Amino acid sequence: MTALVEEERAADALWTDRFSQRAARATSSVIREFLKLLDDPEVISFAGGLPAPEVFPVQQIMDATRRVLEQHGDAALQYGATEGYRPLRELLVRHMGRYGIEVGPENVLITSGAQQALDLVGKAFINPGDRVVTEDPTYLGAIQAFSTYEAHYVTVPVDDDGMCVNRLEEALRAAPKFIYVLPNFQNPSGVTLSLARRHRLVELAARYGTPIVEDDPYGQLRYNGEHVPAIVKLDADLHGCAHRERSFRGSVIYLGTLSKTLAPGLRIGWVVASAEVVAKLAVLKQGADLHTSTFVQMVAHEAAQGGFLDRHVKVIRRLYAERRDTMLRALERHAPAGVRWTRPQGGLFLYLTLPPGVLAADVLKDALAAKVACIPGTAFHPLGGGTRSMRLNFSYSRPEVIEEGIARLGAVLRRHVADVKPAQTAVSAG
Amino acid sequence: MTALVEEERAADALWTDRFSQRAARATSSVIREFLKLLDDPEVISFAGGLPAPEVFPVQQIMDATRRVLEQHGDAALQYGATEGYRPLRELLVRHMGRYGIEVGPENVLITSGAQQALDLVGKAFINPGDRVVTEDPTYLGAIQAFSTYEAHYVTVPVDDDGMCVNRLEEALRAAPKFIYVLPNFQNPSGVTLSLARRHRLVELAARYGTPIVEDDPYGQLRYNGEHVPAIVKLDADLHGCAHRERSFRGSVIYLGTLSKTLAPGLRIGWVVASAEVVAKLAVLKQGADLHTSTFVQMVAHEAAQGGFLDRHVKVIRRLYAERRDTMLRALERHAPAGVRWTRPQGGLFLYLTLPPGVLAADVLKDALAAKVACIPGTAFHPLGGGTRSMRLNFSYSRPEVIEEGIARLGAVLRRHVADVKPAQTAVSAG
Repeated sequence: MTALVEEERAADALWTDRFSQRAARATSSVIREFLKLLDDPEVISFAGGLPAPEVFPVQQIMDATRRVLEQHGDAALQYGATEGYRPLRELLVRHMGRYGIEVGPENVLITSGAQQALDLVGKAFINPGDRVVTEDPTYLGAIQAFSTYEAHYVTVPVDDDGMCVNRLEEALRAAPKFIYVLPNFQNPSGVTLSLARRHRLVELAARYGTPIVEDDPYGQLRYNGEHVPAIVKLDADLHGCAHRERSFRGSVIYLGTLSKTLAPGLRIGWVVASAEVVAKLAVLKQGADLHTSTFVQMVAHEAAQGGFLDRHVKVIRRLYAERRDTMLRALERHAPAGVRWTRPQGGLFLYLTLPPGVLAADVLKDALAAKVACIPGTAFHPLGGGTRSMRLNFSYSRPEVIEEGIARLGAVLRRHVADVKPAQTAVSAG
Repeated sequence: MTALVEEERAADALWTDRFSQRAARATSSVIREFLKLLDDPEVISFAGGLPAPEVFPVQQIMDATRRVLEQHGDAALQYGATEGYRPLRELLVRHMGRYGIEVGPENVLITSGAQQALDLVGKAFINPGDRVVTEDPTYLGAIQAFSTYEAHYVTVPVDDDGMCVNRLEEALRAAPKFIYVLPNFQNPSGVTLSLARRHRLVELAARYGTPIVEDDPYGQLRYNGEHVPAIVKLDADLHGCAHRERSFRGSVIYLGTLSKTLAPGLRIGWVVASAEVVAKLAVLKQGADLHTSTFVQMVAHEAAQGGFLDRHVKVIRRLYAERRDTMLRALERHAPAGVRWTRPQGGLFLYLTLPPGVLAADVLKDALAAKVACIPGTAFHPLGGGTRSMRLNFSYSRPEVIEEGIARLGAVLRRHVADVKPAQTAVSAG
């Protein structure tokens, strides 16, 4: 028996001893491991980035599927073009046009969620050791995707107006391959890049000849304040090339998704770029998964068209605004002095910072014991840091659950903050 | 205006000058470019690898979608586990168990089509310059996927019994990372690896400590002859580790797909490997696309269960057997002496070889002028070759269309073969 087990191990080791350098380095994300702890139904989770299932357009998807299969069943179940289903690309062109992003279908590549867009961008542009500028903190999935291609990071801090663009020039002197930025209701911080900083960003990027990847999963989910134009639009304005009659070229690659506006289970994202870049990304996508499910693309197109997407986004906005407000009010009530948090104008997340001397890891451990979960900030800082931060999702849980969860978290926070108060006072007195 | 155009170019060049080494090398597949020529509805295409839309289970997918959305709409539209939808993994475990492949759900990773499985295998195991053994010819999509990770190829020729295993030992001395093999009705050749050679393959692989990637998209589509056990099963038998009560470990990674048995437009494939390898591939998949569409996985599971998949495969087999026979009979009638072709026992393709002195590129050019299309063999030979070969698909076109297409192709072939006859005779006389 032991000999057999050893032989099995040996057979498996044929593979595990042969992992590529990138695979040997790849580790499961903190979030993924964390979510496994959450099978306990009594745990209130602010950990994931899940949309609210209450507003999933189930009936609309069902009706759309019936129409697609009745009218185009053969096409929906057949192989399709790598670039994506043409009517869906055209719908997205019209959709973006309303936000001043003037492109044609040849500038749009449909991807299997925006995560695949990040992977393809990494594959297309990152040689081992290439530098990439990110915000600090930034989206964990981007770190995962770019790290697969052995990116090195140069980070720029974030404040209430988004990326601190006055710190960007220093980063650009490191000759990065591109700047990766989440301008709207950033994951994880929830902050939005101000219009003034967006202008400054595209000017600096142009001066240093550094292109920009603009990741915009949440742009439509604004609950208050005015829409801020996309970086891709400001860049096109700067270069004077946003004319309908001419093809889009530009120094920005823009990434969108239907995951937060229609449903994440469909896995539909898209890339906007010049036709040349789209063509190259399509070649790489062909090797990666041939194309995104024709069935899902046609269902998504059928469900989204006729203005449904816009009407549905209004429903989502109302629901999430209420949940954000509930969480902000509950934090005011339950969090002790010294704990700070962002006040997002949209999106799914806020970011909480603990006073000096309190570690998020300690808080989160006790929080989990009290049956409430968040994600430690360390997951979002590519060069380390975030030990006093944690990300809270407000889109998934119902208001009464948010109330209860923040009450539990507040009790844990008060204990931890009280514990370090004397030490802190001593330090500031010294 | 010219200045503006130049500025646009410059903005775009920020990206196109920055392609990674792998992207700079990546080129669109011959097939992809070829298929673009086929918009002409009068062209009879034997070029693609498309299943017959006549047997797409449209009603079954529609009913399955309704049940999934009615009963589990929230789950179907939400984010899901990277490893895949558990009941689908369990269904695939039962499915493979009937072919003697004894694994558990922890050994199964759902992928976005089998193409993604090839990409993940390349990502997980290939460092730049690593050698990979393939058949010659082999699947174009595998070459694309592995080449992205800068694989070098060591090839083993194929005859009517599949990979010439007596030539394998020489290839294994080159210390390859793994052996990639399509044992059943191979793409493009249509040939099947004999049982004796499968045994010899697993023995040689074990002796040299080289693992095997078994790609089996067509295994269920056998039209005559006896099922030959999968390599993964023979390997497990050899290592004595195919016991239900113990976890699967092994030196074979097996790849399956629902594209040829249910529908390619769903994009559902799967990997079978030891739990450790599945875990690593899942980490890489998370960075690549988070997970395969929950909606599609649940619909595929609902549609496939209750024995539907097996019943449906029987329908497909009958239809494709008739089309294969039609193509073989038409070739007998229309192809001139000196032209040879394989006689597949299943799958979607046969491979045609021209007599010396006749180039497939010349034939295909004239064939396209005569409104019939196939794929040149050169696409399938990783180290060059195949200049006298072409791949013909028999699954997609109706029998009367196959008749007409082969008649057109036969006329072109007779012209080309007649043209070189004198020269050839001269050479053999000399």
